Amino acid sequence: MTTHTSGPATDRVRVRRRAERASYDQDLVREILDEALLCRVAFVDDGRPYVLPTLHTRQGDTLYFHGSQQNRMLDRMLGEPICVEATVVDSLVLGRSVFQNSMNYRSVVVLGTGHEIVDRDAKLAAMLALVDRLMPGRGPELRPLTEAELGSTRIIAVPLDECSAKVRTGPPVDREADYDLPVWAGELPLRIVPGTPVPEPHLTPGIEPRDNLVSWGSGRSGV
Amino acid sequence: MTTHTSGPATDRVRVRRRAERASYDQDLVREILDEALLCRVAFVDDGRPYVLPTLHTRQGDTLYFHGSQQNRMLDRMLGEPICVEATVVDSLVLGRSVFQNSMNYRSVVVLGTGHEIVDRDAKLAAMLALVDRLMPGRGPELRPLTEAELGSTRIIAVPLDECSAKVRTGPPVDREADYDLPVWAGELPLRIVPGTPVPEPHLTPGIEPRDNLVSWGSGRSGV
Repeated sequence: MTTHTSGPATDRVRVRRRAERASYDQDLVREILDEALLCRVAFVDDGRPYVLPTLHTRQGDTLYFHGSQQNRMLDRMLGEPICVEATVVDSLVLGRSVFQNSMNYRSVVVLGTGHEIVDRDAKLAAMLALVDRLMPGRGPELRPLTEAELGSTRIIAVPLDECSAKVRTGPPVDREADYDLPVWAGELPLRIVPGTPVPEPHLTPGIEPRDNLVSWGSGRSGV
Repeated sequence: MTTHTSGPATDRVRVRRRAERASYDQDLVREILDEALLCRVAFVDDGRPYVLPTLHTRQGDTLYFHGSQQNRMLDRMLGEPICVEATVVDSLVLGRSVFQNSMNYRSVVVLGTGHEIVDRDAKLAAMLALVDRLMPGRGPELRPLTEAELGSTRIIAVPLDECSAKVRTGPPVDREADYDLPVWAGELPLRIVPGTPVPEPHLTPGIEPRDNLVSWGSGRSGV
């Protein structure tokens, strides 16, 4: 069910509940981060915890976040402890009792702190990686960033130094005494599919969406 | 794009970035919480923020969380400030420039603290609500909870007193100068669909999944 390639980087990031589902395999961490559509960033402000959803990209062992220069969350990520979480849900897990209902999932938690990327080319690369993640291959078709747009954008990097994954796979774990109950049990896989593209109102007539839009997510599993 | 029915309950929960997307409408908050497959709970432990994914249910103006009696997150939710976040992604928003790539989403942030539900019937009701949320109509088919199972389960309630929603809808907002670029722009709706049910290995031959499995999510929009 899980792979243990090494232990946690720190005790803080050690998986506590159901440690048999834990992994500290960096390849698995990267894979989950790349598949998750969004992630969440938790930070402390005035002693209280906050968590907000945000887009992320990963390059090597670094996560990148972007936003406006006025973004409070990005500000709070700098030099202070934060926690990033990303989860892909693979299936509903439906047992035969009220007690055995769950999900199969792959989840990552990253502890660390952010630092700002100020190098112009590195900022450009992070923004292009974001586009490529949302819609692979679309970057070269787009009007490049202006210097003003780049200047108004803040990029924060978080290293993947202290992270853990947690994975549940497989069927529900019913009591043997429940096996004969006359109710279906098993896994219901879930995935994301695209609907019909909605053109922007000013779109020049005759411009059709490319195949990468229509087939979006075809290589994906999970939600 | 958004509805302002009233202001935020506190300044802490006021939406800071893009306040024009904010809403403090309790009906909208409820709708988003009910649609989101998972939520995230952020808490502070030893001065550091943590965020974990978890299943939730809502009844009236209360959120319910469940887990084992040993669950650290549930423990940290009691009497301490926490933040709950839930987001539904409705579409990718694809503009004509690298600067205009986003998502349409509906997001909720709840601030507050948890209290434990100890009443036996209230615990049962919360567990049944969880099953009903995962798979509507499945509860009555299942073997009920035993007293031991109920005793090993902790239910934490969080009131929806201090919450806000943030919603983005509509097309990308490109510069007029970009309208004539020869690239498709618009929204790509996303939704969750079920795959082929995978029977639990001990399933009695002849038991087929019910229609509510095969049609799971047919009323859903978003991810």
